[in-house]
Amino acid sequence: MAGKTNIVVLGAGYAGLVSASKLAKEVGTDNANITLVSRHDYHYQTTWLHEPAAGTLHHDRTRIKISKILDLNKINFVQDEATKVVTEEKKVTLASGGELQYDYIIVGVGAISETFGIEGVYENSYHRWTVDGARQMKDRIEYMFARYHSDEAKEEDLTFVVAGAGFTGMEFIGELSERVPKLCKEYDVPRNKVKMYVIEAMPTALPGFDPELVEYAMNLLENRGVEFKLDSPIKAVTENSVELNTGESVKTSTVIWATGVRGNPLIEESGFENNRARVKVDDDLRAPGYEREFIIGDCSLIINTEIDRPFPPTAQIALQQGETAANNIKALIEGRPTEAFAADIKGTVASLGGKEAIGVVGSKKLYGRPAFFMKKVIENRALWILGGFGFLLRKGQNPF
Amino acid sequence: MAGKTNIVVLGAGYAGLVSASKLAKEVGTDNANITLVSRHDYHYQTTWLHEPAAGTLHHDRTRIKISKILDLNKINFVQDEATKVVTEEKKVTLASGGELQYDYIIVGVGAISETFGIEGVYENSYHRWTVDGARQMKDRIEYMFARYHSDEAKEEDLTFVVAGAGFTGMEFIGELSERVPKLCKEYDVPRNKVKMYVIEAMPTALPGFDPELVEYAMNLLENRGVEFKLDSPIKAVTENSVELNTGESVKTSTVIWATGVRGNPLIEESGFENNRARVKVDDDLRAPGYEREFIIGDCSLIINTEIDRPFPPTAQIALQQGETAANNIKALIEGRPTEAFAADIKGTVASLGGKEAIGVVGSKKLYGRPAFFMKKVIENRALWILGGFGFLLRKGQNPF
Repeated sequence: MAGKTNIVVLGAGYAGLVSASKLAKEVGTDNANITLVSRHDYHYQTTWLHEPAAGTLHHDRTRIKISKILDLNKINFVQDEATKVVTEEKKVTLASGGELQYDYIIVGVGAISETFGIEGVYENSYHRWTVDGARQMKDRIEYMFARYHSDEAKEEDLTFVVAGAGFTGMEFIGELSERVPKLCKEYDVPRNKVKMYVIEAMPTALPGFDPELVEYAMNLLENRGVEFKLDSPIKAVTENSVELNTGESVKTSTVIWATGVRGNPLIEESGFENNRARVKVDDDLRAPGYEREFIIGDCSLIINTEIDRPFPPTAQIALQQGETAANNIKALIEGRPTEAFAADIKGTVASLGGKEAIGVVGSKKLYGRPAFFMKKVIENRALWILGGFGFLLRKGQNPF
Repeated sequence: MAGKTNIVVLGAGYAGLVSASKLAKEVGTDNANITLVSRHDYHYQTTWLHEPAAGTLHHDRTRIKISKILDLNKINFVQDEATKVVTEEKKVTLASGGELQYDYIIVGVGAISETFGIEGVYENSYHRWTVDGARQMKDRIEYMFARYHSDEAKEEDLTFVVAGAGFTGMEFIGELSERVPKLCKEYDVPRNKVKMYVIEAMPTALPGFDPELVEYAMNLLENRGVEFKLDSPIKAVTENSVELNTGESVKTSTVIWATGVRGNPLIEESGFENNRARVKVDDDLRAPGYEREFIIGDCSLIINTEIDRPFPPTAQIALQQGETAANNIKALIEGRPTEAFAADIKGTVASLGGKEAIGVVGSKKLYGRPAFFMKKVIENRALWILGGFGFLLRKGQNPF
């Protein structure tokens, strides 16, 4: 089999899956060995995780066996954790001790929570936006309700603090605030015992989003009993409190950390030039200074030239990057010039629990039911891209 | 309304409910004010609690609004906690600060877990066999599974220790062992990471039960991965271990305490002669030395003259005592002699999870499906006694 090009894709998120699938189709297995490396044997829908985290959707609805998305007769699948791309030797090291050689590599290993070095975040907050992490958040919340009628119950057990009023934080509190009345009923807890806070360093929730829609969202959440503390940077998270820079202390047994993400540590480990483990990639998605190394998804950083600020990392961009990276590898193999990546942002919608959402699609602002509908359309579109129509039918969330 | 007899019933367990219901029917509201005092506005099926505790049945299936069992046009219902029977003044004090006068009182306030003064049991184990307690056990167990894929996970998180191989302990581990494979699947936990122990001070599980059936039960549970430590008195329970008298230490994050019960502290508080808060009542169920105070259910102690040992406290006896106590109050009001209580033990069946059980009915030993069937029949019989046929249909567990 000499002569075949080794293409390695790291990560089975939106970015990695699309590129592996596209590579199998466009480059083909006669010309290349395509190998996908992922820690889990499933893909999970990062954009849905706020739902299982709050307990409004079963986590299995947010994940899909990789073998059901990709044709593993055409793609090698290695279940392992990539630890470092050794660019000088064109190889990847794996946590198990293994190594994989590559001619081309696509790095799509995603993001982790950014703690900004704030004390106690890793130890005392729930910060993992993964299936495992979401499951743990859900069971933690339920356990706090279950403990209410017991001697060990503490006042702060029913105070839930979300750190960060960005997308993840707002979508999570949307789900949780929607579920709290049901949890109160389930666990015989008076509604007024439950407190929910969203604490945000910036002076607004959802910074960068349309102010009118932000107001709609905040009003809606406040009506469900959520209290916002804006302009309130967090100094530390302790076992039973969140300490603010202002000196204020919020007692709580459960902190959900959602202040935004940084890239995967593998980026730093591998020596790519980066900012918080994200790489400002070249137009064709290669790491600057590298010929055969592509970086896509949450580990990459793309500038929105319209406003001269980075695009926020989204599934939408990751899916599009996956296609471009695969196309460019094909071009390089065939000796053609690579194409530049152009983000095509169709819209941004944040769900708020129940049938509520806010969003901007094209130049249209949406809120309430229409926004909720769009959110489901966008999510289903991702499923469509990943797996086609049958797949959408099985996994899709019905917007009606 | 002068001249009416005040009858107070404390507790809405099997004993209290039956006696209140019987009193309303037999004594009638023209002649008496019947008042039921209970901490909750619901009755719960103590004998089913091992199921919600292990998470195999929703806790709402084990409880019933009192207003759906009793006709509250005929019976006053006070939701409060009785703290003391002041026999000299013929009154009951309530936690809220209130008081109730009585001419006759039936005390059926049930039992709490017996800790035998073992260090750390209250602080470090789950010992409350109530709806609240069961719910907490369930969520604790699930939280331990949820934590498995996280940095805080400890080896002992998936070791579950049941203290006590009596009825409650065995029925609980039966449910849990049946559920563990499902939990492993749900939380992506390898089955071999989960350990289950039953620790018992006596040299046998289910002491007093037929040895052949005990062996059947132990084999079955061992096949599901349960390990028995018999002859192993517990010295202390710590935050992360159970310490045995032998010096052995079992690391665990979750101890379910099921070593048996003692009566409610109200018994001691009220000055009734007692042994571990249980009163060896007179033949007609009155507290010895008292004319108008009846004690029934788990707070009472009845000797099984055939073997000269106390009957274990069961729902069966409580239901029968409820009838007798009501009859005897009627007799006293009408100036007739009281009747002696005679326990009629129809059988004893312990469920073991899934469709498994062991039991003795009459002189017949049962195991497997037939025993499981009998268990459901007995449970449904209790529902029948409590609420009649429509009630059974709504709440009953289908044995098929």
